[in-house]
Amino acid sequence: MTSVRFRKLAVFGVGLIGGSFGLALKDARLVGKVAGIGRSRANLNRALEMGAIDEVAEQPALALADADLVLVAVPVRQMQAVFGAIAAHLAPDAVVTDAGSTKRDVIEAARVSLGNAFARFVPAHPIAGAERSGAEAASRDLYRNRTVVITPQAETDPQARARVEAAWSSCGARLVEMTAPHHDEVLAAISHLPHALAFALVDMIARRPDATELFAVAGAGFRDFTRIASSSPEMWRDICIANRDLVLRELRAFQSSLTALAGLLEHGDAAALERVFESARTARNAWLQNRG
Amino acid sequence: MTSVRFRKLAVFGVGLIGGSFGLALKDARLVGKVAGIGRSRANLNRALEMGAIDEVAEQPALALADADLVLVAVPVRQMQAVFGAIAAHLAPDAVVTDAGSTKRDVIEAARVSLGNAFARFVPAHPIAGAERSGAEAASRDLYRNRTVVITPQAETDPQARARVEAAWSSCGARLVEMTAPHHDEVLAAISHLPHALAFALVDMIARRPDATELFAVAGAGFRDFTRIASSSPEMWRDICIANRDLVLRELRAFQSSLTALAGLLEHGDAAALERVFESARTARNAWLQNRG
Repeated sequence: MTSVRFRKLAVFGVGLIGGSFGLALKDARLVGKVAGIGRSRANLNRALEMGAIDEVAEQPALALADADLVLVAVPVRQMQAVFGAIAAHLAPDAVVTDAGSTKRDVIEAARVSLGNAFARFVPAHPIAGAERSGAEAASRDLYRNRTVVITPQAETDPQARARVEAAWSSCGARLVEMTAPHHDEVLAAISHLPHALAFALVDMIARRPDATELFAVAGAGFRDFTRIASSSPEMWRDICIANRDLVLRELRAFQSSLTALAGLLEHGDAAALERVFESARTARNAWLQNRG
Repeated sequence: MTSVRFRKLAVFGVGLIGGSFGLALKDARLVGKVAGIGRSRANLNRALEMGAIDEVAEQPALALADADLVLVAVPVRQMQAVFGAIAAHLAPDAVVTDAGSTKRDVIEAARVSLGNAFARFVPAHPIAGAERSGAEAASRDLYRNRTVVITPQAETDPQARARVEAAWSSCGARLVEMTAPHHDEVLAAISHLPHALAFALVDMIARRPDATELFAVAGAGFRDFTRIASSSPEMWRDICIANRDLVLRELRAFQSSLTALAGLLEHGDAAALERVFESARTARNAWLQNRG
């Protein structure tokens, strides 16, 4: 499909996302070598054992030496520091991508910190999170048939974009282009809001005096509804803060929906309640069908 | 474990719940024969094919002839009509149980309509729903290791209770006793509220002009969070109406939680936000651990 190859991939933040990218690119034989850099030595060692990376770099300059592909996969509020640390060490032909769940803030951070290399930064968001985190959870198949949203800027070099897209495509991902503000709007509704709701519900239950008894009766519905509340608190703190204007807008819209629903309950309007539930079921089942 | 046996089980409403009860009791060789009665002939035929029932009854009197065990597994707002239709035809030794997700209303309906047979009614709620419905979805293992909440009344005959408990136990379920009001409180928090939230979220998204684009980007987190929004609208309409005082209380409590969360976002209080998320993750992971 493509003849793109990379000498060396440098992964900043070798968690589920970064580790899976390393595994997938090595599996596709698209990359000669993978260097990883991160906060936890134990996690990096696990990534080494699993073959997600081939070497641990102690310093950004060492990770970047001869690297022509860079993935920044740290929580979004840490991206600016990473961009600042790598800007001076990027090889002239290196292209950079990221895996941030928000795009306006990450792009702004890159614009400020990458300098001339900003044209070789291709913002990306692989929609392939999971409630598991760390290299231990990484898989070469994480991106297979998943969507990766690309939000290129006016400055983005077309060749850099083509190379980054080839890398994500080689993982089995389906690429979709959006503007960054639109990406952040869409994700606020379909991802950030549900995460906030799941965290808020489990937290509310957990704080009650009878939490133990409540949890004892919780079944499979509760388990699946709250699965995303087992996601990384640090990562989701960063996402909610980075995208807070749009997350707030969605929270308020949902509050209005709940107020309307409460009104139907107060009035005992069974028919209207059933219409809401039926609309939801029909829409969800159609979505599942399209999704295949 | 028990020497209880039943000559004949009559199932009113042969869906996921009723069909699975028939399959499980037959598998445990606890019952000689199963008669089913319901609204949809196609569904009853499917139940026959699957062996969930042995015969289709056209009338309550025929279903109940010689039946010594009766399960009423219809949406909760239809229970009173079923109790009314069966009261006159119950065999003198028949015990009755139900599978309603709410208990105060079902018990009241039974008290009004079953007359003297009310002492032989043992209210039950198997916490084993699924978003699938109909006999097609039934399984002999649905109740294995699941909780069945029993809410006996002062009038409940101990022998009837023992027989009904033996039936549910034979399905592999774990029995827990609660008062009916307490059951309804617990389930409002841990089950009815999450269902209302999932339906409300999908309905909100589905009504937007850009719904198609939003759904196109939805991933596995959204899929699991909204799984329960594929549940039966009729069944959940009935549950929400039957338990509306407590569902409303939970909705209001959750609205307060969301207002607090929105406040943290407005103030950009990242540390407090992370504490909420961490509390939720810790509680959920501890629950999963205990659950085994």
